[in-house]
Amino acid sequence: MQGKLIVFEGVEGCGKSTQMQICCEWLQSLGIPVLVTREPGGTVLGADIRRLLLEKAEDKPITSTTELLLYAADRSQHVEQELKPNLAARKIILCDRYTYSTVAYQGYGRALDMNLINQLNAIATGGLEPDLGLWLDLDVEVGFARKRGSGDIADRIEQEKIDFHRRVQLGYSKLAASKPGIIFRVDGSLTREAVTQQIQEILNPKLEAWGYQNPVET
Amino acid sequence: MQGKLIVFEGVEGCGKSTQMQICCEWLQSLGIPVLVTREPGGTVLGADIRRLLLEKAEDKPITSTTELLLYAADRSQHVEQELKPNLAARKIILCDRYTYSTVAYQGYGRALDMNLINQLNAIATGGLEPDLGLWLDLDVEVGFARKRGSGDIADRIEQEKIDFHRRVQLGYSKLAASKPGIIFRVDGSLTREAVTQQIQEILNPKLEAWGYQNPVET
Repeated sequence: MQGKLIVFEGVEGCGKSTQMQICCEWLQSLGIPVLVTREPGGTVLGADIRRLLLEKAEDKPITSTTELLLYAADRSQHVEQELKPNLAARKIILCDRYTYSTVAYQGYGRALDMNLINQLNAIATGGLEPDLGLWLDLDVEVGFARKRGSGDIADRIEQEKIDFHRRVQLGYSKLAASKPGIIFRVDGSLTREAVTQQIQEILNPKLEAWGYQNPVET
Repeated sequence: MQGKLIVFEGVEGCGKSTQMQICCEWLQSLGIPVLVTREPGGTVLGADIRRLLLEKAEDKPITSTTELLLYAADRSQHVEQELKPNLAARKIILCDRYTYSTVAYQGYGRALDMNLINQLNAIATGGLEPDLGLWLDLDVEVGFARKRGSGDIADRIEQEKIDFHRRVQLGYSKLAASKPGIIFRVDGSLTREAVTQQIQEILNPKLEAWGYQNPVET
């Protein structure tokens, strides 16, 4: 039996990192081997690529195609060096962002060519699809307010950001609609405990179907 | 009128760098604006990508698909930030390696999937093809001997390298055969002066056809 790839997706401030950590501890408490990783930056090389993506020079911005190719390079290395070996070791992998992020952010958010995105995702993953996607759906304004710790979202740049993230959110909702049984929507507006509970309710039958022993139920 | 893209190609030790420099000075002496550049590493970002490609960690080697994607990212940035603006400025660009290198080295030399290579070259260049390719054809052993400054090529690793570079050389010969009138073979085994003369004989009618004034001929 192979391990399983679970990807956590959602807009900024949706609570992915927190819920991934809780989910990791929960799975470990069930005796299930887990790997927590992320894109970009899940490998040694990927950390360098992530740095290139974030440290764009002001006067020489990275072009959108170059950016897609760098994300794809990070992903390709991650798939071969981390995901495949850990799936072979029967681990459950919790991955912070994967191909759905590229579709949502670059495709819907920035309106880049969706054919190009799909082509590069296919090249980078070699066809490795998530077994489960957990989309932490949160209203964009709420996410921003959470990140800032305030409700002040009035200035123009913030409005542009909000419009962008609304398109990303729309992208996630379309992705989820196109992959029933694979991508599950989680209501990210609830309390931390309620979100955790939703995730565990989605995961419990999956774990059973995947053949992982669940000591809690024995 | 747009500028023109001339790419210099060939195996190690074939004399590209020297001939590019001579060609640049010659074109400048004719009053033609020239840009000399290279792949990988022809942009600020590309220099960082080149460093990643060369500084592969021993324990975490870059996978072949990742390597192709990084070369493509370097190329995409180079095309947008250097090649297109300088072509728009009517310059003649002398570029040390371009898509043909990827076909010859990764495709023929390392036997990577040629469809993938062509797909990534198309994405990275956005369809920008060279106006002229100068293939400095040199017997692999001669190139190695030149680089080492000796004739000692007996050890096993060198033999593997030679086999690899023979495949690259075969790749160039097939490319040249497939693009008559675009890729020209230059006999790299001749003296520096004779190679320069061959290149100028190829370039003279091209410059005229492209509409560059040639003060030497007026």
